[in-house]
Amino acid sequence: MTIAMNELQWVDFLKKHVNPGRNVVVGIGDDCAQVKVGKEKLLLKSDLFIEDVHFKRRDISLFSIANRAVGRVLSDFAACGGVPLFLGVSIGIGSLSSSNLKQLLKGVVTCSKKYKFAFIGGDTAKSKKVFLDVWGVGRSDKCVLRSTAKVGDHIFITGLLGKRPFNASFVPRIKEAQFLVKNFKVNAMIDISDGFIIDLYRILQASKKGALLEGNLPVTNGKSDLYRGEDYELIFTIDKSSKNIDVLRKRFHFVGRIKPNSFGYKNRRGDVKINGYTHL
Amino acid sequence: MTIAMNELQWVDFLKKHVNPGRNVVVGIGDDCAQVKVGKEKLLLKSDLFIEDVHFKRRDISLFSIANRAVGRVLSDFAACGGVPLFLGVSIGIGSLSSSNLKQLLKGVVTCSKKYKFAFIGGDTAKSKKVFLDVWGVGRSDKCVLRSTAKVGDHIFITGLLGKRPFNASFVPRIKEAQFLVKNFKVNAMIDISDGFIIDLYRILQASKKGALLEGNLPVTNGKSDLYRGEDYELIFTIDKSSKNIDVLRKRFHFVGRIKPNSFGYKNRRGDVKINGYTHL
Repeated sequence: MTIAMNELQWVDFLKKHVNPGRNVVVGIGDDCAQVKVGKEKLLLKSDLFIEDVHFKRRDISLFSIANRAVGRVLSDFAACGGVPLFLGVSIGIGSLSSSNLKQLLKGVVTCSKKYKFAFIGGDTAKSKKVFLDVWGVGRSDKCVLRSTAKVGDHIFITGLLGKRPFNASFVPRIKEAQFLVKNFKVNAMIDISDGFIIDLYRILQASKKGALLEGNLPVTNGKSDLYRGEDYELIFTIDKSSKNIDVLRKRFHFVGRIKPNSFGYKNRRGDVKINGYTHL
Repeated sequence: MTIAMNELQWVDFLKKHVNPGRNVVVGIGDDCAQVKVGKEKLLLKSDLFIEDVHFKRRDISLFSIANRAVGRVLSDFAACGGVPLFLGVSIGIGSLSSSNLKQLLKGVVTCSKKYKFAFIGGDTAKSKKVFLDVWGVGRSDKCVLRSTAKVGDHIFITGLLGKRPFNASFVPRIKEAQFLVKNFKVNAMIDISDGFIIDLYRILQASKKGALLEGNLPVTNGKSDLYRGEDYELIFTIDKSSKNIDVLRKRFHFVGRIKPNSFGYKNRRGDVKINGYTHL
């Protein structure tokens, strides 16, 4: 909780000092920044993936490092209802051999084909530890925010929690997000990078709302999955007036409803405990 | 020279494997990638600035770290004849205190006001060493490449070499580049990040041309300035048919002419020796 507040204070500092200008629709504090260039609505995002902070080399293959570093950014585009257009990767080489580096880049190239974005290169430099900064441009005709959940919204998750081992590749939920924004009134969306409980809390904080978690939450290994990061499923809230919510209940996992701010953040037994991995 | 070849081999590897797609006008190997989104022509660029690789903390203030890391990217936009629109900064925190970090970010905010781009935030994470990855989007109606120098072009530099101490801020040559692309036929351009001799060589290699350096080259401290990186002046080549080349000779520094590839890379005394700082 203390750690989470540090990240929120951090975002507050940036919000206060950064004057992003009139072509920035959403600046600091959502999954992506949303900007306008002429008539085009674009998403901008970067995400760091650092040896001994986000991963240990012995736990994960070079291909999975690439896939995961890229996937995290694609997942953020998905969380805004968008698709990727162009991605670059800045690499701190650390202990990587030339052949390691080639494998890593081939991983990025494989992703670019699978998820249909253009890989436009990027910078490489010597460094103490291996790190990747994946950055890029996406497109979203109808940008979904964290801050626009409404009282009465049905809350869903795109898949089971705790199902994706860290050392495996994961599939960012781009297709699912496209299906949702094209067919339903999605009021708010976020991807689960730090844990279901903390990431839903971010929607509630940004939207100034409460929530009631209902029924059995879709966990694989037990309650710890609710607090486990790196799942990269999407949490989304659907307007209560939406038609065909039953379709969503069959395809995805219903987990609860948005309540007024004064209600708090609860499950049937009382207040939800908040924690989860945060970066600062 | 060996080192430089490694960087060129690296670019070759990327060129071979990266399949950037039809909206990418220029991918790997120029100062920026050039892409199209709808009718908009955009520039994309990232640049790493790493403690104990590109700078030592004792040599440079936090403000100058921000200014230099951002300035390097702005200089690349300028080298393509562009202006910056949106910049993000990913920061590895290393040993920075919270107050250090705020100073660093205030430096970026100051740049955003001075050079009229929107600072849209970015990621921060723990790391062993401090590093910044500055990435962003620029715009250029008339993108200038490294690879389109023509025989007979007059070669210029925007300013004196060796004049800008590393620990001081520098002004990326955005205004000068705008003046040039609006008023002259600029066939090729690059910014001096690794040294005049090596960076002009990059134009020659990309354009498959030679060059003759003429007269007294505009150095401050002597011949070593020709091989010194971090100057961030622009080298540009102007079509011999351009009118008012005299205007350019007064405002900038004429250094020589583009020759056929078979001519080689020469000054009046013979072959030019190539070296300079490279990143791999």
